[in-house]
Amino acid sequence: MGTNTFHDLHRRERPLLLPNAWDFASGAALAEAGFPAIGTTSLGVAAAAGKPDAEGGTRAETLALTRALVRLPVPITVDIEGGFSELPEEVAALAAELDSCGVAGINIEDGRPGGSLAPPGPQCVLIEAIKEAAPGLFVNARTDAYWLSGHEEEALERVRAYTEAGADGVFVPGIAEERDVRAVVDATPLPVNVLFLPGRVTVDGLAAMGVRRISYGSLLFRAALRAAVTTALEHRPPEGTPSYADVQRLVSG
Amino acid sequence: MGTNTFHDLHRRERPLLLPNAWDFASGAALAEAGFPAIGTTSLGVAAAAGKPDAEGGTRAETLALTRALVRLPVPITVDIEGGFSELPEEVAALAAELDSCGVAGINIEDGRPGGSLAPPGPQCVLIEAIKEAAPGLFVNARTDAYWLSGHEEEALERVRAYTEAGADGVFVPGIAEERDVRAVVDATPLPVNVLFLPGRVTVDGLAAMGVRRISYGSLLFRAALRAAVTTALEHRPPEGTPSYADVQRLVSG
Repeated sequence: MGTNTFHDLHRRERPLLLPNAWDFASGAALAEAGFPAIGTTSLGVAAAAGKPDAEGGTRAETLALTRALVRLPVPITVDIEGGFSELPEEVAALAAELDSCGVAGINIEDGRPGGSLAPPGPQCVLIEAIKEAAPGLFVNARTDAYWLSGHEEEALERVRAYTEAGADGVFVPGIAEERDVRAVVDATPLPVNVLFLPGRVTVDGLAAMGVRRISYGSLLFRAALRAAVTTALEHRPPEGTPSYADVQRLVSG
Repeated sequence: MGTNTFHDLHRRERPLLLPNAWDFASGAALAEAGFPAIGTTSLGVAAAAGKPDAEGGTRAETLALTRALVRLPVPITVDIEGGFSELPEEVAALAAELDSCGVAGINIEDGRPGGSLAPPGPQCVLIEAIKEAAPGLFVNARTDAYWLSGHEEEALERVRAYTEAGADGVFVPGIAEERDVRAVVDATPLPVNVLFLPGRVTVDGLAAMGVRRISYGSLLFRAALRAAVTTALEHRPPEGTPSYADVQRLVSG
């Protein structure tokens, strides 16, 4: 799938509503439901493997999932957490490998294991190294400054720094108030990505604030987990549950 | 988790209601919800990896999932499809490996890639080889005669043959009518396992017919997939959807 298509999805009238998959089946079902691009959720990938999220231990699982998802007829963007390394050459090599798999974009975050933040300078070096190794990849630079520490000011500084470093988009998970969202949109010419937070934001509201990409993060994974437990406890599947044959077709189709 | 515990679960007053997981998170969530044992679903494991079910191509994924699931504080029973080999020594080696991982039971089926059935003689040899290699494993011998071909008579012959071969339980997916279920229960002294088919059976009804184990098969996986798509399309998660922290705790707890 051409990366131009994925870049363009950030420049349409409506924001890109991006669902996040954690395995091939969830990605295939979401693509079949009509979503024009699919992301991944690092929480989902990690929890599916029995590992904690954001601890840097799911590089192999992330690559394996990527190799499966690129079969889908929509652009794929992959959450690589902090890059699974602090060495720019290793992060760049991962980005190049994902690019050669046919991935359209990646998310790289400044959150680090243990809930700390990478210093902005080294994080910019990672972004620059990725763009040099894989210029066509849509690099969505995520800052966890807002939701890890609540320091909005630091978040805006980081948005500006990552923009300067050559990112293609910026992602600030956790913001929902109009003042906070507009501050980020005003701080960069790049497409701004925020998380869909049920009850706190609406797609229309975020669109009006200038947000260009709204991602679900781990929400769909968590909703799926809930449905599994509810169905098991109540012996009653949700209406519209796909048949065995539907799932087999998702995989082979 | 001791295998005696798992054997005993087939001999209680109420049938064992067995939910089937496809990844660590679904297994952990189902165990936390109070189910006393967890199975796996080969459809879910295969579709999560982007592979077709029942084609014998998910040996590695099944082993990886097993190694994660055995961390849970409940007995685990693993669907090994047809054993991922026609060679008794290879199937026995797989069973021994699962046994050494701490697995309580396995399902081995006579369905084969392409929708055919293994001849009963060689299938009995596989069951015997497994019991010799891992005597403590609860071997649930599944016959696909009923739902692949509709030849009830052949299903009963196979139930008897697998009983003779040393299986610990028999599983006939697809049966729901009282006449069919009772015929299977009458054909073997072993605990009988049937699939929970929503709208066609009830737990109480199956319990009254003498069924000792009711498994969900791929139902929970399919319900989860449906919930992911519905949540993404409607921007509205199911009530009770776990938080990010809840999922992290599932993995670390």
